[in-house]
Amino acid sequence: MVAIKDMLGHGAVVRPDGRAADELRQVRITRHWTDAPEGSVLIECGNTRVMCTASFTPTLPRWRKDSGLGWVTAEYAMLPRATSERTARESVRGKVGGRTQEISRLIGRCLRGVVDMKALGENQVQLDCDVLQADGGTRTASVTGAYVALVDALRWAQDHHHIRSAEKVIKDRVSAVSVGIIDGHPVLDLPYIEDSQAMTDMNVAMTGSGDFIEIQGTAEHRPFSRAELDTLLELAAKGNRELQAAQDAALAAN
Amino acid sequence: MVAIKDMLGHGAVVRPDGRAADELRQVRITRHWTDAPEGSVLIECGNTRVMCTASFTPTLPRWRKDSGLGWVTAEYAMLPRATSERTARESVRGKVGGRTQEISRLIGRCLRGVVDMKALGENQVQLDCDVLQADGGTRTASVTGAYVALVDALRWAQDHHHIRSAEKVIKDRVSAVSVGIIDGHPVLDLPYIEDSQAMTDMNVAMTGSGDFIEIQGTAEHRPFSRAELDTLLELAAKGNRELQAAQDAALAAN
Amino acid sequence: MVAIKDMLGHGAVVRPDGRAADELRQVRITRHWTDAPEGSVLIECGNTRVMCTASFTPTLPRWRKDSGLGWVTAEYAMLPRATSERTARESVRGKVGGRTQEISRLIGRCLRGVVDMKALGENQVQLDCDVLQADGGTRTASVTGAYVALVDALRWAQDHHHIRSAEKVIKDRVSAVSVGIIDGHPVLDLPYIEDSQAMTDMNVAMTGSGDFIEIQGTAEHRPFSRAELDTLLELAAKGNRELQAAQDAALAAN
Amino acid sequence: MVAIKDMLGHGAVVRPDGRAADELRQVRITRHWTDAPEGSVLIECGNTRVMCTASFTPTLPRWRKDSGLGWVTAEYAMLPRATSERTARESVRGKVGGRTQEISRLIGRCLRGVVDMKALGENQVQLDCDVLQADGGTRTASVTGAYVALVDALRWAQDHHHIRSAEKVIKDRVSAVSVGIIDGHPVLDLPYIEDSQAMTDMNVAMTGSGDFIEIQGTAEHRPFSRAELDTLLELAAKGNRELQAAQDAALAAN
Amino acid sequence: MVAIKDMLGHGAVVRPDGRAADELRQVRITRHWTDAPEGSVLIECGNTRVMCTASFTPTLPRWRKDSGLGWVTAEYAMLPRATSERTARESVRGKVGGRTQEISRLIGRCLRGVVDMKALGENQVQLDCDVLQADGGTRTASVTGAYVALVDALRWAQDHHHIRSAEKVIKDRVSAVSVGIIDGHPVLDLPYIEDSQAMTDMNVAMTGSGDFIEIQGTAEHRPFSRAELDTLLELAAKGNRELQAAQDAALAAN
Amino acid sequence: MVAIKDMLGHGAVVRPDGRAADELRQVRITRHWTDAPEGSVLIECGNTRVMCTASFTPTLPRWRKDSGLGWVTAEYAMLPRATSERTARESVRGKVGGRTQEISRLIGRCLRGVVDMKALGENQVQLDCDVLQADGGTRTASVTGAYVALVDALRWAQDHHHIRSAEKVIKDRVSAVSVGIIDGHPVLDLPYIEDSQAMTDMNVAMTGSGDFIEIQGTAEHRPFSRAELDTLLELAAKGNRELQAAQDAALAAN
Repeated sequence: MVAIKDMLGHGAVVRPDGRAADELRQVRITRHWTDAPEGSVLIECGNTRVMCTASFTPTLPRWRKDSGLGWVTAEYAMLPRATSERTARESVRGKVGGRTQEISRLIGRCLRGVVDMKALGENQVQLDCDVLQADGGTRTASVTGAYVALVDALRWAQDHHHIRSAEKVIKDRVSAVSVGIIDGHPVLDLPYIEDSQAMTDMNVAMTGSGDFIEIQGTAEHRPFSRAELDTLLELAAKGNRELQAAQDAALAAN
Repeated sequence: MVAIKDMLGHGAVVRPDGRAADELRQVRITRHWTDAPEGSVLIECGNTRVMCTASFTPTLPRWRKDSGLGWVTAEYAMLPRATSERTARESVRGKVGGRTQEISRLIGRCLRGVVDMKALGENQVQLDCDVLQADGGTRTASVTGAYVALVDALRWAQDHHHIRSAEKVIKDRVSAVSVGIIDGHPVLDLPYIEDSQAMTDMNVAMTGSGDFIEIQGTAEHRPFSRAELDTLLELAAKGNRELQAAQDAALAAN
Repeated sequence: MVAIKDMLGHGAVVRPDGRAADELRQVRITRHWTDAPEGSVLIECGNTRVMCTASFTPTLPRWRKDSGLGWVTAEYAMLPRATSERTARESVRGKVGGRTQEISRLIGRCLRGVVDMKALGENQVQLDCDVLQADGGTRTASVTGAYVALVDALRWAQDHHHIRSAEKVIKDRVSAVSVGIIDGHPVLDLPYIEDSQAMTDMNVAMTGSGDFIEIQGTAEHRPFSRAELDTLLELAAKGNRELQAAQDAALAAN
Repeated sequence: MVAIKDMLGHGAVVRPDGRAADELRQVRITRHWTDAPEGSVLIECGNTRVMCTASFTPTLPRWRKDSGLGWVTAEYAMLPRATSERTARESVRGKVGGRTQEISRLIGRCLRGVVDMKALGENQVQLDCDVLQADGGTRTASVTGAYVALVDALRWAQDHHHIRSAEKVIKDRVSAVSVGIIDGHPVLDLPYIEDSQAMTDMNVAMTGSGDFIEIQGTAEHRPFSRAELDTLLELAAKGNRELQAAQDAALAAN
Repeated sequence: MVAIKDMLGHGAVVRPDGRAADELRQVRITRHWTDAPEGSVLIECGNTRVMCTASFTPTLPRWRKDSGLGWVTAEYAMLPRATSERTARESVRGKVGGRTQEISRLIGRCLRGVVDMKALGENQVQLDCDVLQADGGTRTASVTGAYVALVDALRWAQDHHHIRSAEKVIKDRVSAVSVGIIDGHPVLDLPYIEDSQAMTDMNVAMTGSGDFIEIQGTAEHRPFSRAELDTLLELAAKGNRELQAAQDAALAAN
Repeated sequence: MVAIKDMLGHGAVVRPDGRAADELRQVRITRHWTDAPEGSVLIECGNTRVMCTASFTPTLPRWRKDSGLGWVTAEYAMLPRATSERTARESVRGKVGGRTQEISRLIGRCLRGVVDMKALGENQVQLDCDVLQADGGTRTASVTGAYVALVDALRWAQDHHHIRSAEKVIKDRVSAVSVGIIDGHPVLDLPYIEDSQAMTDMNVAMTGSGDFIEIQGTAEHRPFSRAELDTLLELAAKGNRELQAAQDAALAAN
């Protein structure tokens, strides 16, 4: 950690919630949060709360049939009052917005990145991430929570003899975290107030072995240099290690 | 209660969850369940769990402007895995289904039925009822929970000087409950397993003074007689009295 | 009738069209109104005119196949100038409104309530109720007219050997009528001018044996008491008896 | 007429309904068919029945405002059982089909072709043509009937002082008729059974002075020669003269 | 040509681009414009540029299956900045506009008019006409260009043994051109500036043998007489002969 | 470049088109490709061809009004036969797909990243990137081409006195390129055939000063290590330097 702190500079950044620049918000992962889904997780990252469910079905979408391979998809949505001002429902507007689709696709790719589709067999897992309360980092919390719901759904599927082994289907852990640059300072895990001021904003999904599944960095407000990028990636690596520890703890619990 | 029990017949109905025919499921009402909304309530009726938020805004839809009157609307939705099998999202299907619209309209009418639009002034309250877990009676739980969220939002509006007095806006309590006929026996507060077998199904919204705001009874499977109707209405009256006691207790708490 | 008149109070209500409180508008039912449909009925209740067609097809929607049971559905719509101001077409707006869906579902349930699906066999009847002119009570006129169209379509199906016996498919008559409370007075069969002033508005569908198929009462403007409800139900029973006499007369004609 | 008969050849075409090749189906035009619209016409051409309403409003669509000119539009639709097999509603399918839009646009252009937009002033007339029963020629019947509804709406507008003079707004009559080639024989006013077999199909809208407003000829099945075209145009001219006589008679009646 | 010039009158019309009244704009047809499609053509008529592709597939839409016949359809669209002001995308608006559908249908009918569906066999050709730059006459350029793309796709299909002979599938040439009346003068091939001023506007699709496939003439601004119609048809015949010469030259090239 | 080659390993990767691992496809940028738009560019990167137009308008979307700031947006789309099999139009399907929206948003962010919104003033530039032919890298070609169209539109705006200085609006160059890992080898600028086999796929948008505007890396098929990431970023930096040289050359030409 010393190294990162160094990169971050002496003058400790003063963050609105008093955290250090490389400190995660408190994470809480509650499994079996509702009864119906094969996997049902409430993940809380600070004030961000996302309900992640995993639906296991022994059928596939038509285009995937007879491939011998499984499939994993995800859908993300926000409840109208997850935000400080009410957001109109996408069902009422009659279409799914660009941001929503983008995030749904991101979550799906992250989870597929750690699933062995052959070991899953001709089965499907649908992940639903519904944001009950939004305070920044909803898409990364979704990835992190969906992983736990996915494991639970696969354990259920193993218990019900739909798959041989949940262990074999999951090739590695996956979690995601946001990093960004505020007033020139790289920081980890941005709440909404920081996110809205960030010059650069990056979401990083990583495996348990420390490799990358997804990097999405955007600098609409100020381009970032290669040196800044390196620092951001270090912060993300630290954050993901800690999130994966929380996943492990939750999954060991029961 | 003696009278009702009489009507219900001696042979006590055996219900799947062991309740008496005129017994409500356990009700729990949690206020301030999330932070952003002016009113935020989690209502649990047995295994049915609905998140009810009330959004207060000092603006009106265009058609209502300059009327001197306020407005109250509601939207109802189910999360995909509220149900035992996953339901496709209405946002993805690109339209709000008939059932959803019907329930949204019902909730709106029930709440408007106890609001003094003049006392509300040119302000709007939008109620959102999102079903996290569905086990029958989601629309009636929504009405009951939305009432508490509405009161909280009006208290907030009073504290923030948008309205003079929350008390004056609310003319009376409102709650709703389902009743139905199973195997010829009238019962109160049907969970999903009973609901799906009911010959007749009725939702009854009532005020604190015991009057009716809404009665919706349907008998697709077997018509019901006037005598059966009378029994159902008695059961509904009992249920609503108890639900209103729960509302009162919750609202007194803080 | 004496009893009802009593309940209605001495001071006879003065209605805009001079009717007594418990008097229906004039009903006219014209069968074989157009040539193509298996059942085609024009029903006129005062100035309300609805074209009801019944389409019989020896196929079922996919979800109903191989059940050995038939299916009955309904769709309701208003022509743009059925109303005093032009209403935009739902096809042009790209979606079916909540009110339309609600009414379509109501009509479908009412008719299914008197059909023996086993006797119907794997056949479907689609009822279309298109309002040519609207003066209140369009949904109840639709139910009443659709019943006649349904019987005609079943007779056609019997003649064409799709079903054994139309008689056996129809378990009972069904008709519907509106009742409401105007200035505190319960009245039967409200035209638009009364409907728009009603404190309480109720639609009641009943069978020939006097049982209820559907009750939808709403009191957005002023809750109604149990005593008022009882009077409204008596009025509805009287109205439905008379509507069923008109149905019988029409069906006997040919 | 001798000339045309000559062109049509000696061997009289035998048409399914026994008409001569240059003979219209029976036309009936009923004005004031419903009460609400400013103009309301039922036009019957043989078994084709179209309800044509004209809605006059003293407002304009936004793009036309402050132009000093009026506007006329039209919408066409078919009821589900206008046809021998039920057609799904466009509102339910969520969009207006290509054929429907094409016909709506055609009707609008035809009527605008005889309206003096300056004399109409900043007012709008919306024409709605709803096909109650379809037996070929629904779009041409719509044009012919909509003209009568338009005149009635303009007379209403004159009586209500929205415009100075209905006479001045209408520059000329307009009617439309279909012609086609069946088995090599040109014929006038095709019912469905002929229309479905036609090699060539043409709709011709003409003014009272015998000029053309719209010609739409299509020969998906066999191209047509210039000589055939000339004969078709003669037939159309004869048909339109007769339709305009029927329009005149109807408009003189009241 | 003398004859036409006569009809057009001595006083030569002065056209914005200096062309004679009966003169086409310069036509350029580029085959194999892109690599992927079975037929890919860029057609330029003056400043109008349309990319026409033909997609051959050995499958049919469901309703056409097992008929032993092929099918040809077309879709037309404009890129947002084909026009002088940007036009919103129909994909973003969520529906295809009436004008677009009308033109797509027209192109499809024109091409089907020269295809022998039996010789095509159970194969489909989908024509896509995308306007890169619009300067009037985009729909007629689409028909003319699509014909060349269709021939190329059929030659490809012959080479790949999907059909026996491209020659046998194509019964005749087809091209289309616009004609119109400007200030009382009939002219051929109208660019946008003329089109927007035309009193009458007509699109005429003709075969190589000089017969008509489609005539669409509209006179929203001033009706046209029979004599004017005759002149317009002569102009169209001349224009189509020249366009077909350009098609032949292009198709001979390779 | 020596350094990169080293990282790429000795064993030169054999690419389908014979390029070196760090070699761009041939780039061609044609300005003023069509006449109507303020900026109109055809960019060709190998076989990928994208038409990029920039529409300058002195108005803003409503939400941006009175901010003193300008706005830049982008829309991306593919023509149906840009791909080897025909893709259904999004206008016909009635909605814009997730991939399309994601790319449109990416292009918009990249261009906004180099625009000084204050210098742009209350004006808007809409970028449209329509793929005429797709062979991988369509989104990055869109960014690179759109930059040139944007500069042209700003020069036009300067010439027409809508803005003071195009130079001042553009803060820096921007271009984008794809990189990926094929069979374990990092490569630059992937055509479709490589893209479809890539384990990891990354799009990198960079400024002229070598900073990052956007990094989107995804590893659905195999996670990538930090070392691989570093190599990919070096390749992207090289590619973007060369693309920006091509942009400069094109913009200097006129």
